[in-house]
Amino acid sequence: MPDLSDVTRGRLLYGGDYNPEQWPEEVWPEDVRLMKEAGVNSVTLGVFSWSKLEPRPGERDFGWLDRLMDLMHDSGVGVVLATPTASPPPWMGHLHPDTLPRDAEGRTEWWGGRQHFSHSSAVYRRYAAAITEDLAARYAGHPALTLWHINNEYCTYDFGDEAAARFRSWLRHRYGTLDALNTAWGTAFWSQGYGDWAEVLPPRHAHYLKNPTQVLDFKRFTSDMLLECYTAERDIVRRHTPHLPVTTNFMPLWAGQDAWRWAEEEDVVSVDLYPDPRDPLGAQSGALVQDMTRSQARGPWMLMEQAAGAVNWRRVNRPKPRGLNRLWSLQAVARGADAVCYFQWRQSRQGAEKFHSGMVGHAGEQGRTYQEVKRLGADLARIAPHVSGGRITADVAVLHDWHSWWAGDQEARPSHEVDYPRVLSAWHRALWQAGLTTDFAHPGHDLSGYRLVVVPQLYLLTDAAVDSLLAYVRGGGTLVCGFLTGVADQDDRVRPGGMDARLRELFGIRTLHEWWPLEPGETADCEGGLRGTLWSEELEPDGTADETVPYEGGELDGLPAVLRKGRAWYVSTLPEPEALRALLTRVATGAGVRPALDGLPDGVEAVRRGDLLFLLNHDREPVTVDVPGTHHDLLTEATVTDRITLGRYGAAVLKP
Amino acid sequence: MPDLSDVTRGRLLYGGDYNPEQWPEEVWPEDVRLMKEAGVNSVTLGVFSWSKLEPRPGERDFGWLDRLMDLMHDSGVGVVLATPTASPPPWMGHLHPDTLPRDAEGRTEWWGGRQHFSHSSAVYRRYAAAITEDLAARYAGHPALTLWHINNEYCTYDFGDEAAARFRSWLRHRYGTLDALNTAWGTAFWSQGYGDWAEVLPPRHAHYLKNPTQVLDFKRFTSDMLLECYTAERDIVRRHTPHLPVTTNFMPLWAGQDAWRWAEEEDVVSVDLYPDPRDPLGAQSGALVQDMTRSQARGPWMLMEQAAGAVNWRRVNRPKPRGLNRLWSLQAVARGADAVCYFQWRQSRQGAEKFHSGMVGHAGEQGRTYQEVKRLGADLARIAPHVSGGRITADVAVLHDWHSWWAGDQEARPSHEVDYPRVLSAWHRALWQAGLTTDFAHPGHDLSGYRLVVVPQLYLLTDAAVDSLLAYVRGGGTLVCGFLTGVADQDDRVRPGGMDARLRELFGIRTLHEWWPLEPGETADCEGGLRGTLWSEELEPDGTADETVPYEGGELDGLPAVLRKGRAWYVSTLPEPEALRALLTRVATGAGVRPALDGLPDGVEAVRRGDLLFLLNHDREPVTVDVPGTHHDLLTEATVTDRITLGRYGAAVLKP
Amino acid sequence: MPDLSDVTRGRLLYGGDYNPEQWPEEVWPEDVRLMKEAGVNSVTLGVFSWSKLEPRPGERDFGWLDRLMDLMHDSGVGVVLATPTASPPPWMGHLHPDTLPRDAEGRTEWWGGRQHFSHSSAVYRRYAAAITEDLAARYAGHPALTLWHINNEYCTYDFGDEAAARFRSWLRHRYGTLDALNTAWGTAFWSQGYGDWAEVLPPRHAHYLKNPTQVLDFKRFTSDMLLECYTAERDIVRRHTPHLPVTTNFMPLWAGQDAWRWAEEEDVVSVDLYPDPRDPLGAQSGALVQDMTRSQARGPWMLMEQAAGAVNWRRVNRPKPRGLNRLWSLQAVARGADAVCYFQWRQSRQGAEKFHSGMVGHAGEQGRTYQEVKRLGADLARIAPHVSGGRITADVAVLHDWHSWWAGDQEARPSHEVDYPRVLSAWHRALWQAGLTTDFAHPGHDLSGYRLVVVPQLYLLTDAAVDSLLAYVRGGGTLVCGFLTGVADQDDRVRPGGMDARLRELFGIRTLHEWWPLEPGETADCEGGLRGTLWSEELEPDGTADETVPYEGGELDGLPAVLRKGRAWYVSTLPEPEALRALLTRVATGAGVRPALDGLPDGVEAVRRGDLLFLLNHDREPVTVDVPGTHHDLLTEATVTDRITLGRYGAAVLKP
Repeated sequence: MPDLSDVTRGRLLYGGDYNPEQWPEEVWPEDVRLMKEAGVNSVTLGVFSWSKLEPRPGERDFGWLDRLMDLMHDSGVGVVLATPTASPPPWMGHLHPDTLPRDAEGRTEWWGGRQHFSHSSAVYRRYAAAITEDLAARYAGHPALTLWHINNEYCTYDFGDEAAARFRSWLRHRYGTLDALNTAWGTAFWSQGYGDWAEVLPPRHAHYLKNPTQVLDFKRFTSDMLLECYTAERDIVRRHTPHLPVTTNFMPLWAGQDAWRWAEEEDVVSVDLYPDPRDPLGAQSGALVQDMTRSQARGPWMLMEQAAGAVNWRRVNRPKPRGLNRLWSLQAVARGADAVCYFQWRQSRQGAEKFHSGMVGHAGEQGRTYQEVKRLGADLARIAPHVSGGRITADVAVLHDWHSWWAGDQEARPSHEVDYPRVLSAWHRALWQAGLTTDFAHPGHDLSGYRLVVVPQLYLLTDAAVDSLLAYVRGGGTLVCGFLTGVADQDDRVRPGGMDARLRELFGIRTLHEWWPLEPGETADCEGGLRGTLWSEELEPDGTADETVPYEGGELDGLPAVLRKGRAWYVSTLPEPEALRALLTRVATGAGVRPALDGLPDGVEAVRRGDLLFLLNHDREPVTVDVPGTHHDLLTEATVTDRITLGRYGAAVLKP
Repeated sequence: MPDLSDVTRGRLLYGGDYNPEQWPEEVWPEDVRLMKEAGVNSVTLGVFSWSKLEPRPGERDFGWLDRLMDLMHDSGVGVVLATPTASPPPWMGHLHPDTLPRDAEGRTEWWGGRQHFSHSSAVYRRYAAAITEDLAARYAGHPALTLWHINNEYCTYDFGDEAAARFRSWLRHRYGTLDALNTAWGTAFWSQGYGDWAEVLPPRHAHYLKNPTQVLDFKRFTSDMLLECYTAERDIVRRHTPHLPVTTNFMPLWAGQDAWRWAEEEDVVSVDLYPDPRDPLGAQSGALVQDMTRSQARGPWMLMEQAAGAVNWRRVNRPKPRGLNRLWSLQAVARGADAVCYFQWRQSRQGAEKFHSGMVGHAGEQGRTYQEVKRLGADLARIAPHVSGGRITADVAVLHDWHSWWAGDQEARPSHEVDYPRVLSAWHRALWQAGLTTDFAHPGHDLSGYRLVVVPQLYLLTDAAVDSLLAYVRGGGTLVCGFLTGVADQDDRVRPGGMDARLRELFGIRTLHEWWPLEPGETADCEGGLRGTLWSEELEPDGTADETVPYEGGELDGLPAVLRKGRAWYVSTLPEPEALRALLTRVATGAGVRPALDGLPDGVEAVRRGDLLFLLNHDREPVTVDVPGTHHDLLTEATVTDRITLGRYGAAVLKP
Repeated sequence: MPDLSDVTRGRLLYGGDYNPEQWPEEVWPEDVRLMKEAGVNSVTLGVFSWSKLEPRPGERDFGWLDRLMDLMHDSGVGVVLATPTASPPPWMGHLHPDTLPRDAEGRTEWWGGRQHFSHSSAVYRRYAAAITEDLAARYAGHPALTLWHINNEYCTYDFGDEAAARFRSWLRHRYGTLDALNTAWGTAFWSQGYGDWAEVLPPRHAHYLKNPTQVLDFKRFTSDMLLECYTAERDIVRRHTPHLPVTTNFMPLWAGQDAWRWAEEEDVVSVDLYPDPRDPLGAQSGALVQDMTRSQARGPWMLMEQAAGAVNWRRVNRPKPRGLNRLWSLQAVARGADAVCYFQWRQSRQGAEKFHSGMVGHAGEQGRTYQEVKRLGADLARIAPHVSGGRITADVAVLHDWHSWWAGDQEARPSHEVDYPRVLSAWHRALWQAGLTTDFAHPGHDLSGYRLVVVPQLYLLTDAAVDSLLAYVRGGGTLVCGFLTGVADQDDRVRPGGMDARLRELFGIRTLHEWWPLEPGETADCEGGLRGTLWSEELEPDGTADETVPYEGGELDGLPAVLRKGRAWYVSTLPEPEALRALLTRVATGAGVRPALDGLPDGVEAVRRGDLLFLLNHDREPVTVDVPGTHHDLLTEATVTDRITLGRYGAAVLKP
């Protein structure tokens, strides 16, 4: 199968979404000039062009796109061509109201925004297939075409009648019989036993708590329906261009798609990434998504969208200060990206995203934003030959599973303060701050290659996943599990004892008496100064643990907060950041895991990609880093011996 | 008529909701063994079993229930049998969409949760009657059957078309003519005059403020419709088993039902009670509901549901710490309960309430929860012969009326900071902390037996209710009224002067110039250090008061905050807790009311039931209590002379 | 055309909404007696009387109104007669459901409140015209009639199908062709190109961000539809009474109507005004609305509604403390009002506004409220001959435009902390506190008469408006512009450079690199101690500015926060109140603008109307004010030489 290297061909892609249909054609040559100056070598066309391509049902207007494809080719800029199916033209909803989604409250989602399509609508799917077919047929042989981009940020739900019918089909396929569904959903509770498939609905607005397994299955179904939409279009373009890879862009750590599953259906894994420039941990939240995307790609990946400056959808949208766009772009490359792209090339003057920055902002060529874009383009070109295609090795894996997230995020649960993405991020942050390069993995993956596996929280674990964890430890691996792990099975059925019995045995727990969630701001003190947040547990050990850290004071005084039995650790609270970092550093050291560079100052990130060492200073103050030996800094062409000083938001790419 | 004593027969009931249809039958014998060990003598079956009993319209499957009834009988456990009508099977909404409620926004409440039935649906009522009939016919003669439990936590609203039609009938019955309705609703305001009954609707979503009397009548109507549903089923089971009592379980201080009216239709009054284990005033909020329920029952009552540990519906759900389940259960008995029951026997592994604790939790037999349940069962058995059927005498009554609550809780009012349940609770808290045993009463009740009547806030008072208060004082009673009392008549018509003229005269008020609601956190200083919260008033006295406490400073400087004229007190603000406690202690002493025990330390509750003195330590630290004389502690079998030390969450039941 | 002087005839109007249909006729003579005692000379009848006048479709019942009109005439009280069309009778929605509005979520707004009419409904408009016609015909010759009041507080939206059809017609009229609409709305963005007019809808509930120009046009359309409703009724009454003026009452600074445009269609401009008595800046928020209304009226205006005490729609509703009603009423007169009226004469006992105060409150004649109303009536009568018809001259204009507000208030924008009314108010407050009398103006007005023009924020400026500002400065005027001015054109299209190029040149700005919105509580320090809030900007000056105040510290260190080039000032942040006051004082002084009185103590407001000097003490403590020379205080009849002491909430009206 084709992959990203077929597009990069030894380069790093640089560019972004290009929507010239919003501009008079006189602007296009100016665009090309500025692209060239900035080193742009790839643009994405057509993401939101459906009404332009098909102004009336069945009509086609490809002329403008023909001219653009030719212009790009003539300018040496490769084209990522998008199917336009994320935003149907107004005529579709008008002629076919059933193509519009309904939310859980029964409200129609009208056109006038975007993504107003029902994934379940047969009419929508037919129109989407037709425009995809024609687009693929027309440009299959065009020399500018390098990659297919299907739809955009799949993220919709539909609770309407056509979705209900597809939900029933999906459930029939999953369960076979109504008896099996009734068992899986536990419908003996609250008199929900279904006697006829026709009675089964999406989890629509209800008087009180909905059935959580119904909700879980509806999330699974939604991810699968969207995937069907994707694969249907992918298969069409593949038929026309079997030599070209296909992608669709994920949103970062988005709840709506099982991206492990989706990534298997992509040739190139790509993601959109928008950390808040105001967030002191923005760099870490970026690293998390980068690590996740690299792990899904199992190699180089594509940063499909980022912002050159501000976004427009936060309450207060700050631009990136000088240097930050370059720093975070180099961070993506350090963590495996072979493409650094933006939404969008030229900032829109109209519409709902005109306050979202572009590579060329409202201030134009003289604006700081474009000037920095130009500098970055040169940097990327300089390092590309050394880095493109380079791989990253991690000794640590953090486990993550959408199904567990979906199940745990239910209406009535021990604590709504426990927010899965925040827990996941807290654990990743500790590893990131410890300088430990980290993959993400699914519990069903082969974990044997990792020295350390960290499970921040897998509320739902299938029997097979439990097997996998046990086998990993038996095989010599070191495992650290956070609280609320192994609570439920694949149907969100609480396991006897409130936590899988084999896991309890693994950690040396006899009885999990009670969960003690903490209030916001409340902490649970433990021996040695460790303080837990969010959660605590009333655990009775079985006496086999090799080491425990007890709670101190309160109702849990003396009971174990942390247990270690051999190489298996259980952490029944969320330690404060420094404590978690210290704990994981100790465990990692014991497991033989070393940071990318020893003695890193705070705020400096170090990552090794291939034989290169990336150093990134996330502070506004210069910092000096010890790097024993002699290196060549690809960015400055300077020779570095034993130490290097990085300026504000500075970076170095060191080659031995 | 039969009553609770026909069920208890000298015992205290102990047990809870039992939903074995969620478990394989192999688990049942294990249930029986654990019940016996714990002293369980009563379970509630069938609350949510409709789809199991009637899997398809008109079908019946009683086999599993037959086996359970027999098993319970063989095990010596009495059965409270529920009609399953709180949660219709999915087929009902599917075949009869009109049985589903609509909310004020027009949204359908779909099945998939529970209580998705319209109280006004003729179809629903017909199906409910049919299953009730068959259930009653089948088990009328079963020896395990002790009590009927109708539906569960009636609590729904319906703004749909069938409800609208019933609302019109209800209004015709109440008002007779449209003219009378127009007068009562004050439809001359904002051009709302109705010319045809067909124009009258539930108070659905509107552009701006709804007619408050329409809203008030809709609440009255809703309570009455739910009551019709209840009495229809009650009459059916009564026909089959005239010798057995009937109940339905209230939610604690729930806005949706006029429980005074409902209690008259019950043989046994029962309630569900879930104070937050984290709430420092949890014990008082429990006492309030217990006092209210006892007053409705006019004798022993049934604690139908409580949690052995955590619930699942708060933002953060904490378990009960060691000892608290026992303490709060004994508190209920102290305050008149002859039944201590739980939702539910065995914690569910599936469904929306799997994180709601059970008597047997996820941790099973070895879990702390079940171990404490076992201990409590023994305690209850020990004290039962002495306490069952015992009565409580209170010299103080707190007045409460749902209609007043409904009327006062309107969209546009002087202050939304004034929350009726919180005001009611603040006054009850002061009495509770003063150790004064308190009944609740309706203003229409005979009050002559009480030395002290406290009216925290009765915004709406009918003429008859005003008569009643005046007669009470004339008859020698002492009356304390809080602000916003006597403002409106039965139609929510503001009385001339903003407060009933006879009440003003009673307290010595010439003119109520203005209400001065306070902001959150704002206080009104008064002479003698008393500080008011929530509210203040610009009052002009008529010179007849015997005693006043003036405001100090601010716009109200020198005007009376508190007035006393003879035995009638008016309090125009909500004093801070300590001040209110001191005020009520003084008034009570003056009225000849004594606490249950003198010299009680803070945190210790004392209640006398029959000839027993219950002492309850709500603190985590041990405390010593003076109890002059010699007593026998029924819990420890120890003899107690003059003083007793209660441990953490400790209790004593002293017999002279 | 007739105007307000035809109604006042040398007096100040005093009175309010009178809704005697809510009371038995026995109360009416009592009303008249109290009105006379209070000096009431004008009442508004019929605002919400539709169901009384037309109890069934087509029926008429004028008898009660005949009696009232006669009674008022006999009592010497003029009548402002309202068309009752703000609240259709229940029969209308019942018989014609399409007359009910739908909100963006598709929810119907039912009757039971008020304003449940669709401005677009042909049926509603027909019924409204018919009742207006009959009302006008009947009372055209009645001697009590002085002024027509059309509808009440027009403020509704409608997203339903009939509104959609009218929206399309409105758009066809505005744009002529679909191409023009597509261009104006920028539908090339997100594939929103319309191919058929029938596809165009109101901006209903959508999956994600709606098209902002569609939303802007929908607001324009809504204002225009409501205006059509108004003018249709106005034209009917004018036909019957060409000699009588017509008004409709605005809500203060209400977003829903372009009041500049509306005022042109009125003979009398009137407004409802409800500052919060608890708001320390209540007097300024009143002054803002008064200045705005006077500017719309271009002369004396009418305070149609205020509250004598508390309102009922805030979370906590405080009454006006002693003296405040008088003070704020005199303030309105000082700022140009020739009518001081209330909602309402007698406080309702029933309905949704029974907790909204009246001139006669629940406490009746003896209540403080009525006693103060009586005193104020005497004061107004005393000053009326000197003040009625008097004009106010302002040297400062603050620019305000609804279209700019509408455009700036979009879903996705740089900062949701930037709230246009608060920014406008902050600038007005600085001028008010500096004692500078201020008009409001539209950017399209002739500004040449003002020495100083202040633009707090005009996000949207048409080309003509930019022309106007430039011409104003060229003509010798002094201009101060706040941030986010001149960003967009009439279609909400961002101007190249992010700010109009000519404006940038005017201020000496080469490049606007980035907007830097500030977080709540965050400030931007500037040289000289000035601290900015809400916003900052990364500006590159072009070297032509005469003066700059730079930012200090942070990312913008050294860049200009404030620029002055000649007489044109640009302020790229919102200075803290004291700093803004100091800045504007300095600029005003430079422009030759003087305060109404020099050396005013804090908390005292001074305004000159005609030859009168109004002094208003907004503090609860007495204060002494220097007023050089000898004056006659019209309120006290005292002679004032050089200084005067004003009591708590005291006022003086000084004549030279």
